[in-house]
Amino acid sequence: MIELGPNRYGKAAIRLVKVGRGSGPHTLRDLTVGVHLEGEFTTAHTDGDNTLVVATDTMKNTVYAFAKDRLDGSIERFGLALARHFVAFEQVSRSTIRLREHGWRPIETTAGSAPDAFVRSADLTRTATVASGEGGESFEAGIEDLTVMKTARSAFSGFPRDRYTTLPDTDDRIMATRVSAAWRYIAPAEGLDHDALFAAIRATILEVFADHDSGSVQESIWIIGRAALDRHPEVAEISLTMPNLHHWKVDLTPFGLSNDNEIFIATTEPHGLIEATVRRSG
Amino acid sequence: MIELGPNRYGKAAIRLVKVGRGSGPHTLRDLTVGVHLEGEFTTAHTDGDNTLVVATDTMKNTVYAFAKDRLDGSIERFGLALARHFVAFEQVSRSTIRLREHGWRPIETTAGSAPDAFVRSADLTRTATVASGEGGESFEAGIEDLTVMKTARSAFSGFPRDRYTTLPDTDDRIMATRVSAAWRYIAPAEGLDHDALFAAIRATILEVFADHDSGSVQESIWIIGRAALDRHPEVAEISLTMPNLHHWKVDLTPFGLSNDNEIFIATTEPHGLIEATVRRSG
Amino acid sequence: MIELGPNRYGKAAIRLVKVGRGSGPHTLRDLTVGVHLEGEFTTAHTDGDNTLVVATDTMKNTVYAFAKDRLDGSIERFGLALARHFVAFEQVSRSTIRLREHGWRPIETTAGSAPDAFVRSADLTRTATVASGEGGESFEAGIEDLTVMKTARSAFSGFPRDRYTTLPDTDDRIMATRVSAAWRYIAPAEGLDHDALFAAIRATILEVFADHDSGSVQESIWIIGRAALDRHPEVAEISLTMPNLHHWKVDLTPFGLSNDNEIFIATTEPHGLIEATVRRSG
Amino acid sequence: MIELGPNRYGKAAIRLVKVGRGSGPHTLRDLTVGVHLEGEFTTAHTDGDNTLVVATDTMKNTVYAFAKDRLDGSIERFGLALARHFVAFEQVSRSTIRLREHGWRPIETTAGSAPDAFVRSADLTRTATVASGEGGESFEAGIEDLTVMKTARSAFSGFPRDRYTTLPDTDDRIMATRVSAAWRYIAPAEGLDHDALFAAIRATILEVFADHDSGSVQESIWIIGRAALDRHPEVAEISLTMPNLHHWKVDLTPFGLSNDNEIFIATTEPHGLIEATVRRSG
Repeated sequence: MIELGPNRYGKAAIRLVKVGRGSGPHTLRDLTVGVHLEGEFTTAHTDGDNTLVVATDTMKNTVYAFAKDRLDGSIERFGLALARHFVAFEQVSRSTIRLREHGWRPIETTAGSAPDAFVRSADLTRTATVASGEGGESFEAGIEDLTVMKTARSAFSGFPRDRYTTLPDTDDRIMATRVSAAWRYIAPAEGLDHDALFAAIRATILEVFADHDSGSVQESIWIIGRAALDRHPEVAEISLTMPNLHHWKVDLTPFGLSNDNEIFIATTEPHGLIEATVRRSG
Repeated sequence: MIELGPNRYGKAAIRLVKVGRGSGPHTLRDLTVGVHLEGEFTTAHTDGDNTLVVATDTMKNTVYAFAKDRLDGSIERFGLALARHFVAFEQVSRSTIRLREHGWRPIETTAGSAPDAFVRSADLTRTATVASGEGGESFEAGIEDLTVMKTARSAFSGFPRDRYTTLPDTDDRIMATRVSAAWRYIAPAEGLDHDALFAAIRATILEVFADHDSGSVQESIWIIGRAALDRHPEVAEISLTMPNLHHWKVDLTPFGLSNDNEIFIATTEPHGLIEATVRRSG
Repeated sequence: MIELGPNRYGKAAIRLVKVGRGSGPHTLRDLTVGVHLEGEFTTAHTDGDNTLVVATDTMKNTVYAFAKDRLDGSIERFGLALARHFVAFEQVSRSTIRLREHGWRPIETTAGSAPDAFVRSADLTRTATVASGEGGESFEAGIEDLTVMKTARSAFSGFPRDRYTTLPDTDDRIMATRVSAAWRYIAPAEGLDHDALFAAIRATILEVFADHDSGSVQESIWIIGRAALDRHPEVAEISLTMPNLHHWKVDLTPFGLSNDNEIFIATTEPHGLIEATVRRSG
Repeated sequence: MIELGPNRYGKAAIRLVKVGRGSGPHTLRDLTVGVHLEGEFTTAHTDGDNTLVVATDTMKNTVYAFAKDRLDGSIERFGLALARHFVAFEQVSRSTIRLREHGWRPIETTAGSAPDAFVRSADLTRTATVASGEGGESFEAGIEDLTVMKTARSAFSGFPRDRYTTLPDTDDRIMATRVSAAWRYIAPAEGLDHDALFAAIRATILEVFADHDSGSVQESIWIIGRAALDRHPEVAEISLTMPNLHHWKVDLTPFGLSNDNEIFIATTEPHGLIEATVRRSG
């Protein structure tokens, strides 16, 4: 017998910009939204019966319509409104809203911040995943594309050496990475000040990245993750993904030059890939 | 208390080309390989103790060294050799090798197939994930980047209409998608002819995509997945991801022209995203 | 004094799919079109006077409307119809249409070629640039994204050695490249069979790439370009861009293995970049 | 007769990071460099004679070696040292160095700016092209990837209407663009303070973008370009490319909602593409 296993569907890459036009300076929100539904969709697959299939085009329309009145706070709050809307369909057992917010800031001019002109801050992509339905409501917040580099206090030594090991020990290397982080809050998370928490956790990640001594990317992940939990009691667990974007020291001796950790080749392929979750226990 | 949760690490995007230089025409293998290890790495995080941390640079070296003697068959067989090598480290509880093989074919000339010149077939990316360790050995095979289009026999109608629904019913639309598929074989999978199975399953996916009448992407996934299981008894389950890359019919009436499903705007954002697993039951 | 210098404007990335629905199998055309106009647009810049500014939205509409009745042959012919349409605006001195056609082929099934289902051939992007106006009408045809590799008969030696040279001579290396080619026909080009010529010139590029002995990428460009002119008297000149996508032989000696030009690291950064035009003289 | 026409070659995508390790905080330079040579390379093509072909691998080595002692100021100065080095080869008639500098800034912590940790500023890519040889030395400076948006004071109306025009006039639209700018200085440019000029011209572009009223992208280009020349007498001409990244107002009336220019669909395909040069005359 052949059966349908786990399945879900939705709409991805809904690109939404909202301009806030109050009495003061404009505000600008720039989001990419995805909607994913799970539920009673078996006959849609096996019998071509669409009577319960909320069209993904309808999902898109709903996102734009909700943006009008319900996108006035954190992306978490906007996501929750959407998640609750879709889970209200009887056939939907769980709806998941994925949100990415792209940063913009007012252009600074000699006369002050422009009220209606903005420049993209590509180093700040905030993420959230909000779900509703079976298992309750859940919030995951995060950050993407945060590219950072330590030019000192990063080492890697004492690792095992086998037949295939050629990497020398080093007590001074470059550590460059593009941090992806996602964290869950201690429930219930709905009433939290998600914007303030995001800003504070992002600041912690950056500050600890800058401040710590690293013996490996693994140790860095632990130190950053532990600090996020230490400093932010609202956080239940945090998952960090930190590719090791290798910077190889150039051998300048053929050219009669020394290289005291000054000149490096930046590379992207291959890269180390280090992932870990740090959480509260007990 | 704060503790380390799930963690893994490895090397991604190892780019490997192997030229087979026997007595006949050259062969060409072009792989992207990733290695991921799980195991006893807690103190590497919490104490900066690297004594058990196999360097990701060593992983890369091992992939190239193994390519010399062990890359002479399917990517599954190559992956298994690597997975077994890494799980033999005492501290490793599970090693996972991810492989993508990029297609090339000999250049056809008036004198026949070139023995030593190849052209990239970008429509053929084969994937495999091979793991070894706790839970046994496992194989997952798949395909990526298979972009296909049906210009007839695709409909979508009878879906529910609410306040946010504007999409009209249609009995004749374009269905374009970029298929990602991944399947598991009934264990034990080691002795299978993975190359022949991949070719056969790929052919099934393409043929059924071409042949069936589609009432929705959901129905298409079911029909394709069921056929994969029907025709290939070695397959235990198959997961299919099929984005709906919408092609919108252009309204030509402002220009005094009709559009009998001939002229379309191809789009990528937003897109539907339909995922399902089809499996054997009971 | 400050003045407006050269300027042009238009619409880029117009994504157009046309399905031909005659009595037989469907045909599928997939184009990306750009329109660029030059002419009397000074006051649009300096005075904000839009009375002569054909809206780029109108350009887009025109491309879709023309696709209905005029996209029934080569992209060159379609481009010419568009170029002539836009240059007919009095203020336009020259209009340029850039076209890229993305390849699809019918899906092969056990019952033959599918009449209404297609698979993308990502290795075949055909280009054309058609212009009309001052200086007459011109056609440029080309190919993009043709990724090819020679695994034998490629050398590079005898180059000058200075203080900064470390590359050894080699008489056997991999040559991998992604060919971009663009050629002009001997005027008048309007009446040519552009489809047949494209297929023939593409076949020449592939065949000569496969057949020749290469002493450098420069020599390869010359040999391929000269063959294109030798075999196709309609071609006046051809420009070829061939990045050298280096494949570095892996040093396996630390692992006790030899590497007889079998195992390579595929790289994209940095890459050589070789460009030349081959043309008829006199 | 068939002959070799224009040709050049070089190395692209040389990825270079330099860490400055003086007594104070570290400095970080992150460059992508390309080297292109023109000259007496005919026999390299036609006879496979490499005796005059400076290897592109040597170019790469030279860039890294020069970075050691000569990358201590503007990218223009570094580029000039490289350009002069390569044009000193007798067979080289002109060498062109293309540089892109990727922005990083020290991480701000509660204890002040980190001395040895940096975060990528993806909104700041500075470019320069420096050439030496026949025709003298030349400098072109520029900026890439500066994505900006005006949420007010952007209109587009009064354009001509023909059979294919459906776009309504608007006196209030979003104008979003990703500015690319490149400018030349009045010669001789070698002694200029390139870093200060770049910062000043970038500030002008941003400020004028924010401050002006736009009747079209064409008018915006003119206003920005003219201001660059007005405010910076060192600039001889500036070329600006401004794609019109359309933001379409969503029709919310089917959902019983108004949309007073608040909710938009952000798009990338198709886009307007507006290019112009503004220069000093007479």
